[in-house]
Amino acid sequence: MIEIGIVGGTGYTGVELLRLLAVHPHASVRVITSRKEAGIPVSEMFSSLRGMGRISELRYSDPAQVDLKGCNVVFFATPHGVAMSQARELSAAGVKIIDLAADFRLKDASMFERWYKMPHSCPDLLAESVYGLPEMHRAEIAKARIVGNPGCYPTAIQLGFLPLIEAGIVDTAHLIADAKSGVSGAGRKSELGLMFSEAYDNFKAYNVGGHRHHPEIVQGLDEFSRTPVTLLFTPHLTPMIRGIHATLYARLTDPGVDLQALFEKRYAGEPFVDVMPPGSHPETRSVRSANICRLAVHRPQGGDTAVVLAVVDNLVKGAAGQAIQNMNLMCGLPETTGLTAPPLLP
Amino acid sequence: MIEIGIVGGTGYTGVELLRLLAVHPHASVRVITSRKEAGIPVSEMFSSLRGMGRISELRYSDPAQVDLKGCNVVFFATPHGVAMSQARELSAAGVKIIDLAADFRLKDASMFERWYKMPHSCPDLLAESVYGLPEMHRAEIAKARIVGNPGCYPTAIQLGFLPLIEAGIVDTAHLIADAKSGVSGAGRKSELGLMFSEAYDNFKAYNVGGHRHHPEIVQGLDEFSRTPVTLLFTPHLTPMIRGIHATLYARLTDPGVDLQALFEKRYAGEPFVDVMPPGSHPETRSVRSANICRLAVHRPQGGDTAVVLAVVDNLVKGAAGQAIQNMNLMCGLPETTGLTAPPLLP
Amino acid sequence: MIEIGIVGGTGYTGVELLRLLAVHPHASVRVITSRKEAGIPVSEMFSSLRGMGRISELRYSDPAQVDLKGCNVVFFATPHGVAMSQARELSAAGVKIIDLAADFRLKDASMFERWYKMPHSCPDLLAESVYGLPEMHRAEIAKARIVGNPGCYPTAIQLGFLPLIEAGIVDTAHLIADAKSGVSGAGRKSELGLMFSEAYDNFKAYNVGGHRHHPEIVQGLDEFSRTPVTLLFTPHLTPMIRGIHATLYARLTDPGVDLQALFEKRYAGEPFVDVMPPGSHPETRSVRSANICRLAVHRPQGGDTAVVLAVVDNLVKGAAGQAIQNMNLMCGLPETTGLTAPPLLP
Amino acid sequence: MIEIGIVGGTGYTGVELLRLLAVHPHASVRVITSRKEAGIPVSEMFSSLRGMGRISELRYSDPAQVDLKGCNVVFFATPHGVAMSQARELSAAGVKIIDLAADFRLKDASMFERWYKMPHSCPDLLAESVYGLPEMHRAEIAKARIVGNPGCYPTAIQLGFLPLIEAGIVDTAHLIADAKSGVSGAGRKSELGLMFSEAYDNFKAYNVGGHRHHPEIVQGLDEFSRTPVTLLFTPHLTPMIRGIHATLYARLTDPGVDLQALFEKRYAGEPFVDVMPPGSHPETRSVRSANICRLAVHRPQGGDTAVVLAVVDNLVKGAAGQAIQNMNLMCGLPETTGLTAPPLLP
Repeated sequence: MIEIGIVGGTGYTGVELLRLLAVHPHASVRVITSRKEAGIPVSEMFSSLRGMGRISELRYSDPAQVDLKGCNVVFFATPHGVAMSQARELSAAGVKIIDLAADFRLKDASMFERWYKMPHSCPDLLAESVYGLPEMHRAEIAKARIVGNPGCYPTAIQLGFLPLIEAGIVDTAHLIADAKSGVSGAGRKSELGLMFSEAYDNFKAYNVGGHRHHPEIVQGLDEFSRTPVTLLFTPHLTPMIRGIHATLYARLTDPGVDLQALFEKRYAGEPFVDVMPPGSHPETRSVRSANICRLAVHRPQGGDTAVVLAVVDNLVKGAAGQAIQNMNLMCGLPETTGLTAPPLLP
Repeated sequence: MIEIGIVGGTGYTGVELLRLLAVHPHASVRVITSRKEAGIPVSEMFSSLRGMGRISELRYSDPAQVDLKGCNVVFFATPHGVAMSQARELSAAGVKIIDLAADFRLKDASMFERWYKMPHSCPDLLAESVYGLPEMHRAEIAKARIVGNPGCYPTAIQLGFLPLIEAGIVDTAHLIADAKSGVSGAGRKSELGLMFSEAYDNFKAYNVGGHRHHPEIVQGLDEFSRTPVTLLFTPHLTPMIRGIHATLYARLTDPGVDLQALFEKRYAGEPFVDVMPPGSHPETRSVRSANICRLAVHRPQGGDTAVVLAVVDNLVKGAAGQAIQNMNLMCGLPETTGLTAPPLLP
Repeated sequence: MIEIGIVGGTGYTGVELLRLLAVHPHASVRVITSRKEAGIPVSEMFSSLRGMGRISELRYSDPAQVDLKGCNVVFFATPHGVAMSQARELSAAGVKIIDLAADFRLKDASMFERWYKMPHSCPDLLAESVYGLPEMHRAEIAKARIVGNPGCYPTAIQLGFLPLIEAGIVDTAHLIADAKSGVSGAGRKSELGLMFSEAYDNFKAYNVGGHRHHPEIVQGLDEFSRTPVTLLFTPHLTPMIRGIHATLYARLTDPGVDLQALFEKRYAGEPFVDVMPPGSHPETRSVRSANICRLAVHRPQGGDTAVVLAVVDNLVKGAAGQAIQNMNLMCGLPETTGLTAPPLLP
Repeated sequence: MIEIGIVGGTGYTGVELLRLLAVHPHASVRVITSRKEAGIPVSEMFSSLRGMGRISELRYSDPAQVDLKGCNVVFFATPHGVAMSQARELSAAGVKIIDLAADFRLKDASMFERWYKMPHSCPDLLAESVYGLPEMHRAEIAKARIVGNPGCYPTAIQLGFLPLIEAGIVDTAHLIADAKSGVSGAGRKSELGLMFSEAYDNFKAYNVGGHRHHPEIVQGLDEFSRTPVTLLFTPHLTPMIRGIHATLYARLTDPGVDLQALFEKRYAGEPFVDVMPPGSHPETRSVRSANICRLAVHRPQGGDTAVVLAVVDNLVKGAAGQAIQNMNLMCGLPETTGLTAPPLLP
C-alpha cells in the first residue's frame, strides 16, 4: 500500500485527488494538510465525502505539525511556490513528489520567475525534475523523484499537436490553440468574475495577451520538434464546471500525409488517449470525471490546415487523474490502476 | 460472475447501468438490447464508453433475436409496459427481473392502468413482485424474483417521510412534498419543453394537478403508517442535469420528539442513507453520480411542522444505482458491492 | 423630467435601475455614487452600458462629495443601514426616497434590529414611511416621502397569498412558502457559495431555520388578515441568474370558493400582476427582465389545500422595476411608464 | 405607422421580432402566420407576451388565408425556401421583404442549391436583392425591395474581419474564424443534441468539415477584399442560450499598422458596432438582448497575427434586431429606431 500525503487539500484538485484515491486499490491517504482548516474532517468541508469509508475519516492537519517524511508519495495541490519550498527535504528523505502547481513545470527558472512573479528556490531540483505528461515522458517519469504535473490547457494542447510536431509536417512557427475551459479551471476561490451570476449564460476570451500556460506548452512541443515552435494561445471561459476543449490549427507543410493514420499510430498503445474516427467532434462531457484525452483530427475541405479537436476533464487528465497516473508509473504499478471508471454522462 | 441482460439500453438509465456495472466486480453485462440501434456498439452511441474495456465492446442486440434466459439478472430500462410482457417467461426460466419502469411498482393493477393508460398483463406477478426500496423492504427483496425499482421522486420522498410515519408522530392526512428535479429525470427524448433553450435559466412547476409518482409514494408510506396517508406532491423542473431535492412538510402531532435522534436511529445501519448534522442543507451535487440519499431534518423556529430535506441523484439512487443495490441483495452479495465510488464534486 | 440620484450603483440592483431608467421617458439619472469606483464611468464597470446614450456617460461620484438635495428622487441601492443615515436630511429637503434595502420595510424597529443586527437610527421616519408594494398600498405610496421597497421573495409571496388572506378563506396559522431563487438574489459579491463551480448544476435549501425576509412577509400579510399569520418560509437556491418561483400552500377553511375567480377579480385592474388560466404553471423565464408577477392557483385533486404558483424577476418586480413603479406613483406619472418592454424569452 | 407582416412566427426569431417590435414607435404588427398554430393567440404560445398590449392580442393566421399585400414590410422568419416562393408576388405588390432565412443571402444560386439542397426558384430576384449587413451595404439596403438578412455567425465574423480586409493588410488566403454559439442559434426545435441534458455542462465543435454559413461569409468578405478570401470556419456549441463569440485570426502582411486606430476609424459612425479599448475581452452577456456587435482587436505578444474578438446576440444583431435595423433603413426611419434599450446584464 502506497502511503500518500496531500499538501493543500481544500481546493478542487485536492478534493479530486481524494475522490480518485478513494477507489485506488494500492494507495492510502495518510495525511492531508490545510493551514486554515486544520482539525476539520474532510467530509465536513466536502459533504460529498461523507460516509465514504476511510477517506471520510481523514482530518486536515496543520502543515506545520505534520511530518510528511513517512509518506511514500506527496502531492502538492497548493498555490505556486509551496512545493519548491519543501521539495529538497522531502526528496532527500526518499519521498516521491508530484506537484500539481507550476513549480516544476518550466525548465528555465527565469521563465518561471517571469510568469509566476516569484524567485525559484531550487533550480537544481528543477533540472532533475520531470514534466509529468506520460505520453511524452513515460520512461523518465518512472524513474523520477520529482514530477511537475502539467497544467490543464497544456495537457490537451500538447497531446493534440504532438503527432503533427513529431512527424515534422506542419509549420511550427504559426501554431494556433484556441482553447475553451470550464470555470473550475480557475480553482476554488472567490473572485467576482467567477461568480455564478457573472459567468453563467456568458462566454468570453481572457488573457489574450498572454497566459501562464503558454511557456509550458511551447517548452513541451519544442522538445519534440525539429523546428522552433511559436504558438498563439487564446484561452476562453465557457459556462460549465469541468472540461477543456482545445481547437488546434496547424498549416501542413506536407499535405500528402494521412492524418488519421498518423494520430492512430502515435497513440495506439496509449490507455488514456482516444483517437476518434474520422469526422468526429469530441465533447467535453464524454471525458467528464475520467482520465482521458479524446482527439479528432480534421482537414476541412481538403485545405492546407489541420484542425485538431482535443478534450480533457481539467480536474482529471488535466490535474488529479494525471497526477495519479504519474504516481502509478513512479511506483511501478500498472499505469491505469484506479483510473478505469467510465466518464459520467449525462 | 452474475450474467446481466439489459433490455432497452439507449436511455439515461441504460447508459447509467453500463457506467455502474463497468466497475462492479461480480457482474458482467452479457447482452443489451435496442430495437433501433441493433448492431451498433454502445460506445458508438455513447462516446463516454469508448475505451472502457469489456463494456465498450458490447453491441446492441435486436430484442427479437436474443434469448435472455441465459442471464442471471435482467434489467428493464424500457418504457412502461415492456417488462410485464416478458416477465412471466423470464421468471419461469429462473431469471431475476428488475424493472426500472413502473410495471411492478403499484400493487393495485387498476391504479397502474389509470395512471399509465394501459392494461396490466400480469396482475398475478404484480402480487408476487417486491417494491425495490431496500430501506423499506430489504428482506423481501433478497427473496424476490421480480423487483419493481422505485421512481426517482418516490425514493427521496419516501426515505424523507419514513421515520416520521413509522414513529406515528405526524398528521398523515396532510403531508406536503415540494420536489425539484433535474432535467434528466424526463429521460433521453426530444421534447420541446426539455430543450436546452427552453429549460436553461428557468424554473417551473409541472403536473401540479397530478403526477404518476403520486400513487407509488402513497402506497409505500401507507404500508408503514398507522393512519391513512394523504399527500400533496408538487414537482418542479430545475435547470440542472441530475439531482432531486425534496422539501417535505409534516405537521407534528407529538411536538416533544427529538427529530434528529429519530432520523439518526432509523438510518443508523443504512449504508446509502446519510442523516446530516442538525441545521444542515443537503445539496444535490453532494450525491451526484453516487447511490446515496442525504437527509436533514429541521423544525423551523421551534414550530409544529417538521421540514425534511432529501437529495438523491435521480439516475443513481433514483434509478440505476438502486437497481444494482437490489441486484446485490437478490444475488446474495454485500449490498454495497460496486457502489462505493464517491460523488463527483464539483 | 424627474432628476434621479442613485446611491450605491455598482451592485445588481444599481445596474438594473440604470438599464430600466435608460428607457424611461420622464426620468434622468443625474448622479450615481460609489465610494470605491468614484470617477469611473458606469460603462467601464458594466460594458453592457457602453454606447447607450446619456446613461453611458455617467460617472460614479464620491458620496462624500455630492449633494443629492438637487434630485427629485433618490434610490438607495446600498447595503442595509445606509438609507436611514441620509433619509432625514434628504427628506427634509423635499427629496423623495426609495430604499431598495431593508431600512424602511419593517414597521417594528426592534424587529429590524434583531434580523439586521444594527440599531435603527430613525424610528420616527419608519413610522411615516410606506411599504412599497403598490398592489397593497397604492394610495399611501402616491403620497409617501419615503418608500421601503419590498424584498424579492416578499413580493412574490405576498402577491400570491394576498387574495386568499383578504378573502379570509385559509388557515392563516399554517401558511407554507416554498420559494426558489436565482443566484443574483444574493447580490454582486464574491462569496464561495455563490461561485459558478459551487452553484451550477446544483440545488439546495438555505436558511431553513430563518430568513430575513420572513418578518417582512408576515407583517405585510397580517395587515390584510383577520386572523394572525404564521408562515413557514423555506428559501432555496436554484442554478439560474434571475427569477423567483414561490410555491405557496394554504389550507382552505372554506372549500367552496372559486379560487380562479377570486384571483382574477382581485388582480383585474393590476397592470403588473398576471393571473394565468386554470391549470397553468408560470415559468420564471416568462417574466425575465420585466416588471411582472405571474400567478396560477391550483387545488390539486380537489383537496383542501390551495397551491399558488408565483414568479417574478427578482431584480425587476422584486427590486429595481418595482422601485420605478413606486417612483411613477410618487411622482404622479402613469404607473406603467417606462416599464412596458416585454420579457426576454428565450 | 409601418404595417408589418411576419411569416412563420413560432420560432425564436419570430418571438424576438415581436419582442422588439412591441417597443418600436413606428411599426405595428398587423399579421403573423403559422400553419400549425393558426387561431392561437401569440401570448398562448409564448407566455412572456401575456399582457403586453397590442402584441398580446395578435393571433396566428393560417398563411393560406391571409393576404400579406396590405403590409408595408413582411419578415420571413421561416425555414429556408419559404421566402423565395412568395417574394415575387409580394414584391410586385410593393411590399418590402426581409428574409431572415438564407433564400436571399447567396448571390450564386448554385451555391445556395449546394448548401441548402433545394433549387432556387427566383434567381432574378436574387440578383436584385441586397445582403442586409448595414455596416457593409447601407446605401443599397435603403433602396432595396428585398433584403437577405445575414446569419448570426456571418454578422459577427464579417464585422470582425472587415477593417482588416478593407485595409488590405492581412493574408486573405488563410483566415481562421473559431466561433462559439449559444444553443438558441439552432432554432426552436426538438433535436436530441439540443436537449438540455445533452447540451448543458458540455462544449463541442460541430460541422468542422463545412457549415452553411461559410459561403455567405466568404462572399461578403470577398467583395471588400483586393485578394481572394479563403476562410477556415470552425463552429462550436457552448452551453448558453444567446450569444455568439467569434475569435478571428489573420496573418498581418503589414505589421506596422495601428490596429486599434484602424478599427476605431472604420466603425466611428456606426451606432451598433462598439470597438472596445485596447486589451479588452468582450463578453457575450454584454450584448444580450441588444442590437450590438462589440469588438476588440489584439496582436498577442506583438506577433504577426491579428486576433479579433467579436460578440453579438445571435437573435438580435444576428437576426431579428438586424432585420429591424434593415427595416428602419428601407423605410427611411432613423436607423436606431426602437433598438436602443440597453442589454440585459446580469
